[in-house]
Amino acid sequence: MIAVERLGDMTSERLSAILARSTADLGPTMERVRAILEALKKDPAAELGREYGRGRSGFSFADLKVSPQEMDEAERLCPSGLVEALAAAKRNIESFHLAQLERPMWMSEISPGLMAGRMTTPLDIVGVYIPGGRASYPSSALMNIIPAAVAGVRRVIAVTPPGENLKARPEILAACRLAGAQEIYKLGGAWAVGCLAYGLGGLPKVDKIVGPGSSFVMAAKMAVFGLVDIDSPAGPSEGFVIADKSAVPEFVAWDLISQLEHDPQASAVLATDDPALAEKVAAIVSNELPKLDRAEIVQEALNNAAIVLVDEIGEAFELADQYAPEHLEIVVEDPMSWLGRVRHAGSVFLGPWAPIPAGDYATGPNHVLPTGGAARAFSGLSTDAFLRKTTFQQLSREALQALAPTVSALARAEGLAAHAKCVEIRLRQK
Amino acid sequence: MIAVERLGDMTSERLSAILARSTADLGPTMERVRAILEALKKDPAAELGREYGRGRSGFSFADLKVSPQEMDEAERLCPSGLVEALAAAKRNIESFHLAQLERPMWMSEISPGLMAGRMTTPLDIVGVYIPGGRASYPSSALMNIIPAAVAGVRRVIAVTPPGENLKARPEILAACRLAGAQEIYKLGGAWAVGCLAYGLGGLPKVDKIVGPGSSFVMAAKMAVFGLVDIDSPAGPSEGFVIADKSAVPEFVAWDLISQLEHDPQASAVLATDDPALAEKVAAIVSNELPKLDRAEIVQEALNNAAIVLVDEIGEAFELADQYAPEHLEIVVEDPMSWLGRVRHAGSVFLGPWAPIPAGDYATGPNHVLPTGGAARAFSGLSTDAFLRKTTFQQLSREALQALAPTVSALARAEGLAAHAKCVEIRLRQK
Repeated sequence: MIAVERLGDMTSERLSAILARSTADLGPTMERVRAILEALKKDPAAELGREYGRGRSGFSFADLKVSPQEMDEAERLCPSGLVEALAAAKRNIESFHLAQLERPMWMSEISPGLMAGRMTTPLDIVGVYIPGGRASYPSSALMNIIPAAVAGVRRVIAVTPPGENLKARPEILAACRLAGAQEIYKLGGAWAVGCLAYGLGGLPKVDKIVGPGSSFVMAAKMAVFGLVDIDSPAGPSEGFVIADKSAVPEFVAWDLISQLEHDPQASAVLATDDPALAEKVAAIVSNELPKLDRAEIVQEALNNAAIVLVDEIGEAFELADQYAPEHLEIVVEDPMSWLGRVRHAGSVFLGPWAPIPAGDYATGPNHVLPTGGAARAFSGLSTDAFLRKTTFQQLSREALQALAPTVSALARAEGLAAHAKCVEIRLRQK
Repeated sequence: MIAVERLGDMTSERLSAILARSTADLGPTMERVRAILEALKKDPAAELGREYGRGRSGFSFADLKVSPQEMDEAERLCPSGLVEALAAAKRNIESFHLAQLERPMWMSEISPGLMAGRMTTPLDIVGVYIPGGRASYPSSALMNIIPAAVAGVRRVIAVTPPGENLKARPEILAACRLAGAQEIYKLGGAWAVGCLAYGLGGLPKVDKIVGPGSSFVMAAKMAVFGLVDIDSPAGPSEGFVIADKSAVPEFVAWDLISQLEHDPQASAVLATDDPALAEKVAAIVSNELPKLDRAEIVQEALNNAAIVLVDEIGEAFELADQYAPEHLEIVVEDPMSWLGRVRHAGSVFLGPWAPIPAGDYATGPNHVLPTGGAARAFSGLSTDAFLRKTTFQQLSREALQALAPTVSALARAEGLAAHAKCVEIRLRQK
């Protein structure tokens, strides 16, 4: 089912195939999305009425907003224990995101009399998209809303697609409220993104839109980028495990299986210097496969999986660096001593007791992470995404005088004489 | 030339016209850019040879790279005093960007035995686009390259379009080297962006591309976004001045003029509670206009300028907040006491001795700032743009045990049984 391959024997084509991951091509959906956004701008009542009113007479924008009664009902409808689990996860996520916050305002004397600094303020209004179609991921609500709430965003607006009878999924509503959303609207796809970006359908115009979604939702976010800020594009989930002989084969096997059950497009790689571990993991995966709830998905995703045998463990870190994984699990002796070696990874899981699924839900770090190699340049979601940074400067007359020759020379070299004059005129005054 | 208008008497159409600024529509250029990028990927030698070889026989990629001799020659060719002015500006810009750096690594005990943290590492390779066509802006090289160098980026690659004989502008080359670029290539437009994004023409593939440019350069950056990271889109420059009776009319008039000389699309607004100041500023602007080097540009940009009279100065801050300016100048008594009132601005200039042109070049804060109202959601360029943040977590067996019921409940609610199993299997081991 999954073969052990020696890195030294691998063709460059095979290595490229492991490193390459599926990326979403938004081209085909973009045209449809643009049409929806245009229709929405032109006549929001007609477009939303057609999509959400579905022939219901007397459909109004107010029907889209989740009412207090609907919220209370949702919490009653949640499976037993789920709200408690969400609350427990929230405690860790909130605690970790609070620890991220940096100096809200600082100032430094750059040269005598020249004070310059930076202040950090939360965005005013943010929209968070939470999928709610075939699959329901209340953990997405926690991971996308909590950082905004912790950053101090005044209005966090959640949107989630409704099912039958314009009802949203109860566990999504409960998670949105618990995470700190002030308002929740039952809207999905490009309609939701359009209403948030343009301020239509009774929704406020937001400054930024975050949250996962189908290729339609991603295309719609790209289409409104600039008008509002958006989060980074995300693709299928992926995990890279580095393990040595100290690792427990069964643990590693389930790490790979749990990664692959996400999606037929999900990827998982194990790199190890221990041939016995490699073979045992491969055997356990094959043995467990038929018994899995999501056997078909894992079976298909196994095409994007690999077990790579390296001569020494440093090669595994080099390969991981090239792969730039969303999740990197390091199951070697003294794992913390290897952390400084990691350059490209979304989140790192150290040692045998930190499996990736624990971080997916409840260790505290965010599960919204760069995929497909984007970890080379992008970081995971954090409070940073919801904070604006504004620089400022104040000068004494003497400080401006000291700066004047520099400003004049550069302004004149750039052909901007009024820039030079603007400084010089000030220094003529007594 | 520029009329004083009372805020209370303004129609909502007039107010909207002041708040609306020109935004680049990349649609028309996108098709041409995509064709260039496709041609480049298909046959870089042919495409670059056609564009840069211009019939020269024996053109090779090596011709695109600035040689050490060319660098030395460039510094000799720089106007006298310019290199010294660039060096002086660099000292302040570097000092301010060093002050931005936050904790490189931190860790926190989220719950007993659950350690989670975040480490910050610089990007590996960054490309910086510096325009060098009609206008030459060496200050752009400082403002875009210094933050990358301060962040610790190992390879900073500058690209700048050459003029006649495949020669780049000497002051741009000097500024790029001074700012910390390791390699400089003579390439412009979509070709430069394509070579950086795909690693063609002898250039390395970069992780991120920043720097200003024409609509072609912006469209090309949008086209490669995802494959590499890019900076935020930027439009024409704009300044908003809040002044009370303590302001010197001549200073304020030159602040407006210097803002408008950037570009016929540039904007400037003065909001004041002092009718006498408003009239004096309007008169000085009219009087100076015919004498300006860039009178035609300023004349055209005056269509995007306004002098707004408010009843009390708080209204000026409200208007500025709605406008969300790139540059906000606060020339009132005790300006620092008003700073906390500012929510949406790229950079703030406090008091009479901090004119915007001083910050354009040399106070230290970056001049790459959000325009067109983007300051609601975006921040100016900083070291943050060149740093990756990687989270990590390590758990004790007991910490995982404490987390297990939460993870299991959430994983099962989301239909991900192997996620639950991955945790549960670990706790069965003794």
